[in-house]
Amino acid sequence: MSARDGVSAVASAWYGTAGEQFEQVDGGICAVQGLRAAGVAAGLKPSGSLDIAVVDAGRPVDVAVVQTTNQVRAAPVEVTARHAADGRARAVVLNAGNANSCTGPDGEAIALDTAHHAADALGCDITDVLVCSTGVIGRPLLPQREQLLDGVAAAIAAADHTSAAADAAARAVMTTDTAPKARALRAADGSGSCVVAGFAKGSGMIAPAMATMLCVVATDAPVAARILQPLVRQAVGATFGRISVDGCQSTNDAVIVLATGTAERAPGVSTFTDALTAVLGELATDIVRDGEGASRLVRLHVTGAVSTDAAVTLGRAIADSVLVRTAFAGGDPNWGRVLAAMGASSVPFTPEKVHVRFGPITVCRFGIGASFDVGQAEAVLARPEIDVTIDLGLGSGEATVLTCDLTHDYVAINAEYTT
Amino acid sequence: MSARDGVSAVASAWYGTAGEQFEQVDGGICAVQGLRAAGVAAGLKPSGSLDIAVVDAGRPVDVAVVQTTNQVRAAPVEVTARHAADGRARAVVLNAGNANSCTGPDGEAIALDTAHHAADALGCDITDVLVCSTGVIGRPLLPQREQLLDGVAAAIAAADHTSAAADAAARAVMTTDTAPKARALRAADGSGSCVVAGFAKGSGMIAPAMATMLCVVATDAPVAARILQPLVRQAVGATFGRISVDGCQSTNDAVIVLATGTAERAPGVSTFTDALTAVLGELATDIVRDGEGASRLVRLHVTGAVSTDAAVTLGRAIADSVLVRTAFAGGDPNWGRVLAAMGASSVPFTPEKVHVRFGPITVCRFGIGASFDVGQAEAVLARPEIDVTIDLGLGSGEATVLTCDLTHDYVAINAEYTT
Repeated sequence: MSARDGVSAVASAWYGTAGEQFEQVDGGICAVQGLRAAGVAAGLKPSGSLDIAVVDAGRPVDVAVVQTTNQVRAAPVEVTARHAADGRARAVVLNAGNANSCTGPDGEAIALDTAHHAADALGCDITDVLVCSTGVIGRPLLPQREQLLDGVAAAIAAADHTSAAADAAARAVMTTDTAPKARALRAADGSGSCVVAGFAKGSGMIAPAMATMLCVVATDAPVAARILQPLVRQAVGATFGRISVDGCQSTNDAVIVLATGTAERAPGVSTFTDALTAVLGELATDIVRDGEGASRLVRLHVTGAVSTDAAVTLGRAIADSVLVRTAFAGGDPNWGRVLAAMGASSVPFTPEKVHVRFGPITVCRFGIGASFDVGQAEAVLARPEIDVTIDLGLGSGEATVLTCDLTHDYVAINAEYTT
Repeated sequence: MSARDGVSAVASAWYGTAGEQFEQVDGGICAVQGLRAAGVAAGLKPSGSLDIAVVDAGRPVDVAVVQTTNQVRAAPVEVTARHAADGRARAVVLNAGNANSCTGPDGEAIALDTAHHAADALGCDITDVLVCSTGVIGRPLLPQREQLLDGVAAAIAAADHTSAAADAAARAVMTTDTAPKARALRAADGSGSCVVAGFAKGSGMIAPAMATMLCVVATDAPVAARILQPLVRQAVGATFGRISVDGCQSTNDAVIVLATGTAERAPGVSTFTDALTAVLGELATDIVRDGEGASRLVRLHVTGAVSTDAAVTLGRAIADSVLVRTAFAGGDPNWGRVLAAMGASSVPFTPEKVHVRFGPITVCRFGIGASFDVGQAEAVLARPEIDVTIDLGLGSGEATVLTCDLTHDYVAINAEYTT
C-alpha cells in the first residue's frame, strides 16, 4: 500500500470510526517519550485562564509545518515558517488571547522576542523554537510583552512529562473552544510501533484550505523532515482541509508535527501515515463538534463525483452554505438548499442524476423530491450527528466534508466577542 | 459618454444617492404607459396572502432577460429562457409560495401549462409569456395546479393600469420579504424622456452573480432587444451583482426588462442606461435593506484596487464573511475580520498597504490597527446604514458592494422556515 493509498483509505475510514484500528493511549502529547509540555496563566486572557503553552522535544528533532494560505499572515506564522525551513525544531511556544496578527513590525519583534526568550531558557538556538498565537486579530501584543515573556519562562520552568502537563498545554490554547482537544494513538505493524499524539484548538474561523487555528502533534517515529513534510501536507488536506465551521479562514493557522525518532522499532511508513491521519482527523472532528454554537455535527459524504477534488469542492460548497447550516439548526429536511448550494459552485454536475440521503432516508432521487416520511427525516435531523450522502451519479470520486449547524449561539458568540 | 461610462458613473453614484438625478414618479410598474398589472391570492401561500402576479404589456414588445448562473435551474427559468430567446414577450406571470425548482418533468409541464393558460386568456402566443416562481425549492407544484391556473386567469382578468394594481403585483411575489420593493423614475435629457419602473422580491438566498430572486422592470423607451440585452446584463452586474445577504445563490433568479417603445420622444441611450441602472440599483439596495433578519445596511467601498473586478471580488469576500457580518450585528469595530476575509480571497493585495475606515474613522492604517476612539467607532456601527472604506493602495479600481449584518433573526427565519 502506497502512502497515498493509505491516506485515502484512512480518510474515508476515520470519519465516524476515528482511529478504531489503533490503540488509544493516555498522556496526550506527552504519550510520546521524551516530550515535555506545560500550560500556564500569564494574564493574556482577561478571564485569567491558562494562556501560554509550551511543547519541548528536549533537543532539535525533525519537524514539518503546514500553515494558513491566507494572504494576511500573522507575525508568528512568518517567524515559524523561517525557523522551520531547515526541517528542525526543538520546541513550540503558543499563546492564546491575542493573535499577534495585523500588528506590523512590533508584532514581528515580539514574536521573535518570544522565540529568543524561550531559546535562552531552553539553551537552544532561536531557530529551533517555533511560535504560534491565537486570539483577537489586529490588537497590539506589545503592551502585554512582560506578561508574555514571564509566562514563557514560567511555562518552560513548569514543563514536564505528565498527562496533566499535556492537558494544561491543550487547555492553554483554547479561545472560544468549550473543551480541550487532545488525541493519542499507538500504531503497530509487523515492523514495530510508534505513538502519534497531539492537541489542537479551534472553534470559529474554521474553513477548509486549511482549517484549524493551531495544532501541535508529536511522534516517536523516525521520519526525516523531507519525508514528513509531504506526508503532513497530505494528511492535513484529508482532514483539516475537509472541515468547515463558518467558511472563514484564519490568519494564524498552523499544524506542526515533531518527529523525535525515539521509537526503537518503528512501523512502516503507511502505518505511520494512517496513524497521523487518524490523529489529525480525530482532532479535526473534535473541532467541528465544538464549532462555535454548534449543536450538531454534519458529515457530508459526496459520492459518484468525477474526481476526489470535485467531491471535496462540492462538499465544501454545501458546508459553507449558511442556508444549509441554518436548516440543520432547525432540523429541517430541506434538501433543495443542498442542491442550490452545489449548483452555485464551479464544479459541473447533472442535477437530474443527483440523489440525496439524510441518514438512511432518500429525500431526493434523480434531482427531484422523493416521497419520504417527514417525521422520520426530522427524527434523523434531531440527532447530534447527521450523515448526509449526496450521490452525483457521475464517477467514482468521493470525499467526506464535516460541518456543523449554524445556530443562534454562533451569532451570539461572534456578535459579542471580538475575535 | 458611452453606455459603459454611464453605467460606471451611476454605479458609483446610486449607492446612497439612489436615483437623485431622476424624477421619482408614482404608479410603480404601471407608471409605464400601457402596462397592466395585478396581484391575486390563489392559495399557494399558506398565509392566504397575494401569491400570483401578472405584468402585461398589451402586445409583444422587446425584452431582455438575465437569469441565475446556478447549475440547478428551476423549470420556469428554463421556460422563460426559451420564450425570451427571440427578444419578444408580452406578459410575465409570477408565483410565490413554490419555486418549482428540482421538480423534474412535472415541474416543466406545469410551467408550460401556466404560460399556455395565460396566453389563451391574453390571446397571444405561448412564447410571448414568461414565467417566474419563487418559494420553497424541491416541493412539487403539481398538487397545486388547479389553484395556480385559476389564479393566473383571475390575475389576468383583474389586471389594470392603476398604482394599486402595480402594488398588488409587487406584494404577490414576496416570500420572507417584509415589504414590497417597487421603484419608478422618469429620465429626461435634451432628446426626450422615458419612464423606467419595476418591482423586485428578495430577502434571503441573495448573493452576487447575480443576486435577486425576481425582478420585473418596464420602460416606454424604444430599445431593441439586441441593444437592451447587453445593457441589462451590464446594469445587473453593477447592481444586483454587487449585493449579498447570505452568499447563497438561488435557482430561480431572473431580471426581466420589457421595453414597450411607447415614449414619443425618448432620451439618449446613456440617459436610459443610467435610469435603468438607478432603478435596478434602488431595488438591489431595497433587497439588502430588507435582508433576512437584517438590522443594518453595510456599504463596502473598495478603492485603490488594481481593477474594478479585483475590487468587486474583494468586496464580495468581505460581504460573504459570516464573521464580518456577525461583528456588524454586534456593533463591534472588528477590522481584523475584514482583513482576514480579504486575505482568504484569490485576489492578491498587500496587507501592509491597506487602510480601513468605518464611517469617517480610520481603524486600520497600513495593515495595522490605528489608534481610534472605540466609543466613536461603536457609535458609527450603531447606525442603520454603515459605510466601510477599504483602500488597497494599489491602483484606481474601485467598487461598492452592499451587504447587511447577520443577526439572530436570520438564523430564526432560516432555521424555522422551509425556503
